[in-house]
Amino acid sequence: MLRIVLIEPIYEGNVGSVARVMKNFGHADLVLVNPCKLGGEARAFASHATDVLYGARIVETIGEALEGSHLVIGATGIIGLASNEHMRMPYSSPEKLRERLNGISDENIITLLFGREDNGLCNDELKLCEVIVNIPLNAEYPIMNLSHAVAIILYELSNIECGEIELAETFDRNLLYTHLDELLSDLGYPPHKHQKTLLMLKRIFGRANLMPREVQTLRGILKLIQKRSKH
Amino acid sequence: MLRIVLIEPIYEGNVGSVARVMKNFGHADLVLVNPCKLGGEARAFASHATDVLYGARIVETIGEALEGSHLVIGATGIIGLASNEHMRMPYSSPEKLRERLNGISDENIITLLFGREDNGLCNDELKLCEVIVNIPLNAEYPIMNLSHAVAIILYELSNIECGEIELAETFDRNLLYTHLDELLSDLGYPPHKHQKTLLMLKRIFGRANLMPREVQTLRGILKLIQKRSKH
Repeated sequence: MLRIVLIEPIYEGNVGSVARVMKNFGHADLVLVNPCKLGGEARAFASHATDVLYGARIVETIGEALEGSHLVIGATGIIGLASNEHMRMPYSSPEKLRERLNGISDENIITLLFGREDNGLCNDELKLCEVIVNIPLNAEYPIMNLSHAVAIILYELSNIECGEIELAETFDRNLLYTHLDELLSDLGYPPHKHQKTLLMLKRIFGRANLMPREVQTLRGILKLIQKRSKH
Repeated sequence: MLRIVLIEPIYEGNVGSVARVMKNFGHADLVLVNPCKLGGEARAFASHATDVLYGARIVETIGEALEGSHLVIGATGIIGLASNEHMRMPYSSPEKLRERLNGISDENIITLLFGREDNGLCNDELKLCEVIVNIPLNAEYPIMNLSHAVAIILYELSNIECGEIELAETFDRNLLYTHLDELLSDLGYPPHKHQKTLLMLKRIFGRANLMPREVQTLRGILKLIQKRSKH
């Protein structure tokens, strides 16, 4: 199941357009974080998808928007250029993202985060994303309309071949990341590399389609390492 | 090379949006057949693609829009249900269309026809199309915003693996179709099936990626058949 989260959208027409294309592809789980006022223009652009528009959950924090997610994917028009820029690297094309999601159960909530029309997602928001997706565009003008980006990603992901795999919840994976954070400190990992390495670990586990049991076992191992390293 | 033709677009915002997404994917060949007035809203939606918007060729007939094309593809939201409805059958998904175009040279002008926001392409316009493309959507609301449809098709076709194949021009293939039309009459083909069968032949040759020499040879064969059948 796909959830679309729009962070602080500025133009109500775009919100309406996103609702419309969501319904075109059979989706209805729309969450808006601190959106602009939604009036007649949003309604006009939603066309026959006012049910999706009016059914949108409006929240104040990203945390609320992500609740219950099994995977958080951030869409960005700006990509990292060096492989050590973990903020925006590695990124997937929509096609690679679809291939990666093949086999997962439709019960999982796959959350797609889209940023503001002018500034996209900020770094703190990107850090919450486990996977980064980028639509390959012409270098001369790579800034796409928000609803076009949603349309293209929903189009590509409409071909996921669903299976039986149940993913761990983002909430539980976050406990793993907190654990890794502690471990790096415990190990005396160089503080100036700490955050960057933590983000790299998050990117690795984010693209690994971890199952609940795997997260549990990994946390068990981390606990053991912490215990031993303290002696 | 892709050309986008919009037939009698009603909303200037959509025309601007189409210009924008064309530039996002590196295209500039936009033709508008009897468009609505293009003012500030078209400009606003085009954003940084006003060069594509203002560079659009405005024409009065579809014939002018298709000039120089090597393949004419019609996009439709309504698909044929029976395999004998040649007007809208067979249709390709954008993905199948891309696969079919793999190998053709980038010198070919591949023209994509998009119809009016309310009524799409009429039957006479669909008859001009050699290939029909349809984006698979949810049955509950399969009517997509015009610029979203353009965005998705351009996204998919941005992955064509170009090669060396030069297609015959639509103009020359049309001579072949005229020839087939004559031949059916010469053969005394049942008049009530004539147009339908002609359209079927057009759909077959339309998806065959005919090269100029092949069209020439086919016409030679037709000429021979006509000559013999008259004796």
